[in-house]
Amino acid sequence: MTQAVRHDSMRARNLGVVLAEVRRSGPVTRAALAEITGLTKTTVSKMVGDLLRAGMVTESGTLRDGERGRPGTAVTLSGGRVAALGLEINVDYLSACVVDLTLTVRLRYAQAVDNRASSPVETFSHLRRLAHRAVDEARLAGLVIAGSTLAVPGPVDDGLVHAAPNLGWHDVRVADLLDFPVEVDNEANLAALGELWFGAAPGDFLHVSGEIGIGAGLVVGGALFRGARGLAGELGHVVVSPDGPACRCGGRGCLEQYAGQDALLRAAGLAGAPEGVPRLLERLEAGHRDALGACERAGEALGVALTSAVHLMDPGTIVLGGVFAPLFPWLRDPVRETMTARLAAMRHAVPELTVSRLGGDAATLGAAGQVIHRVVADPWSHVATARTDPAPR
Amino acid sequence: MTQAVRHDSMRARNLGVVLAEVRRSGPVTRAALAEITGLTKTTVSKMVGDLLRAGMVTESGTLRDGERGRPGTAVTLSGGRVAALGLEINVDYLSACVVDLTLTVRLRYAQAVDNRASSPVETFSHLRRLAHRAVDEARLAGLVIAGSTLAVPGPVDDGLVHAAPNLGWHDVRVADLLDFPVEVDNEANLAALGELWFGAAPGDFLHVSGEIGIGAGLVVGGALFRGARGLAGELGHVVVSPDGPACRCGGRGCLEQYAGQDALLRAAGLAGAPEGVPRLLERLEAGHRDALGACERAGEALGVALTSAVHLMDPGTIVLGGVFAPLFPWLRDPVRETMTARLAAMRHAVPELTVSRLGGDAATLGAAGQVIHRVVADPWSHVATARTDPAPR
Repeated sequence: MTQAVRHDSMRARNLGVVLAEVRRSGPVTRAALAEITGLTKTTVSKMVGDLLRAGMVTESGTLRDGERGRPGTAVTLSGGRVAALGLEINVDYLSACVVDLTLTVRLRYAQAVDNRASSPVETFSHLRRLAHRAVDEARLAGLVIAGSTLAVPGPVDDGLVHAAPNLGWHDVRVADLLDFPVEVDNEANLAALGELWFGAAPGDFLHVSGEIGIGAGLVVGGALFRGARGLAGELGHVVVSPDGPACRCGGRGCLEQYAGQDALLRAAGLAGAPEGVPRLLERLEAGHRDALGACERAGEALGVALTSAVHLMDPGTIVLGGVFAPLFPWLRDPVRETMTARLAAMRHAVPELTVSRLGGDAATLGAAGQVIHRVVADPWSHVATARTDPAPR
Repeated sequence: MTQAVRHDSMRARNLGVVLAEVRRSGPVTRAALAEITGLTKTTVSKMVGDLLRAGMVTESGTLRDGERGRPGTAVTLSGGRVAALGLEINVDYLSACVVDLTLTVRLRYAQAVDNRASSPVETFSHLRRLAHRAVDEARLAGLVIAGSTLAVPGPVDDGLVHAAPNLGWHDVRVADLLDFPVEVDNEANLAALGELWFGAAPGDFLHVSGEIGIGAGLVVGGALFRGARGLAGELGHVVVSPDGPACRCGGRGCLEQYAGQDALLRAAGLAGAPEGVPRLLERLEAGHRDALGACERAGEALGVALTSAVHLMDPGTIVLGGVFAPLFPWLRDPVRETMTARLAAMRHAVPELTVSRLGGDAATLGAAGQVIHRVVADPWSHVATARTDPAPR
């Protein structure tokens, strides 16, 4: 028994080593894999066989090993079978995406829903339908869902959403509300990972998710900084003005009260308007004074909160995402000017301010990407449990 | 040549492994060291010989290995030879300490100097005298200084202090001003490490250094978080009120303007008073209204800035140090109440607020501790270069 367990754990380790190497250097022959990894050719062949059967790699023509080597069959990472489901509940929309093992986005759905008007039970029933639809369509394309992650707009502690103030949620345990296993994480954390894996940002940045709430995710040296309890990055509740308007979080003068989507629309005279953000963008493009003023003031507040964040966290670059992405042309100057005025004298360089190309999709993509990264880090668990399909049925 | 280099690098690695194990499990016999590390008895004996000659370990009586083992000579970490010099320049004092390899504090000096009134050249000439005095006295005790680290009150980038606004320094390159090699780091970073190695804090905390400036150092999982450029933790410049008083950093309404030592003394009617902090403490103990009000308001501002820090960095515990340590009885309630009012609704638990037992000594201790940790991590470099003494002469 112990012997078998030890044998399995070595096989699991070797399978991970071989898959990681195919991912890094593929297309690559078995002989080259043996040379790079230091494993025997027999072991490599066995591992490649397992990965082929699991649909994680595929054979793609022949390849010569070096100048004098004999041609061998090339092995490459396959996007044809293993995939992941990324889900997001946000205040005014739900979204889902399916990403395959090569991190190619295969499906993407978004649905506008005002989740403030619904109970968690209703919201999750909508989400279930969206997830089942995505999984059914992925199956038609021959994909098998290896797992799923859900992004929610609030701090998450061990599967429990203690408070998502903008949704009116308190102590919501996600596992109780879905009929398939899902990991849950904070929207801003997953959006930062989405930016890291699918965006253009380098390995050191603070990604700001502008939604009705505002969150941030700090990536340092290619890894997400989570803090002691996984609750770091709540930029939306950084204090901009201590006696400012009351916030749903229980505080006062939080950034969200100045630069959150609702606050912005209210300041632009678009409170409660359907299609608020597209209408705001129309007005900005038309040079509407209230709209321009609203962005100016939101940008200044964002600049104040980011000044505090730069002093505390020292990010490499700042990437504005979510609704701040389409609004970037109007936010850029007030944010930059505020930060420069407050930071330039003390620091060599004020962090560069850039815009996310993923916008509102970052969190859903990060959610799916997280599952793929886990599969790649530990393919054995997936190969071994492939028959007990963890996806929605 | 290559062979020799490879041999040296293996010997260096083994020396580090053996020293680390003596530190963890000593007193311990050579036989037990061989068993724990997986090295041969011959290698262990050679390494222990090197460490004995370098004065890093010592023999201390005999010890039986297990129940049936033969008695062997016990080896233990020695505080008798290798030591480190910690130095600090702060706005109103200079300090130095010598710490030995067992992290025992051997010497400690502090000198009140108003460094705002002096040029960097004058300040460093005082510091040199203090350092030489410490090294001379350490030598009399048989200690050899393996290296030194200097704490300065401002962000440090590769040996350059770009701006220490409270000292009026701009672009000061420390190496140009001292006659011995020294590593330079930010006071708040080193104070957090001092708290980690010499204090009572666990492995996850935010240490707040209250001085004329206010800095912070975040420790997560026993490691200091430094950010992308090593400039993280500038709590003193977190914005408390965006239109507040101008700060020397170029910003407005920074925490330092409300809770820095000068701001506190000014609010208590003690601006410019000699022995300001001791006099403030006397007045607080006597129940003087202005003094109590000053602490109340400073505590509220500190609570606002820490609210932003908790939202962004999610520290495990908050440790108040520097002058905030003696002031803790008067700061505790306003800080706690402000944080609880702003954080409790959104988080399961507001981080615990505790006081440092090291107070103003934390940075100097952390500076010396950093050298000791480097020696322990790489004893070979020290053994090999022991003859070129890097200490002040």
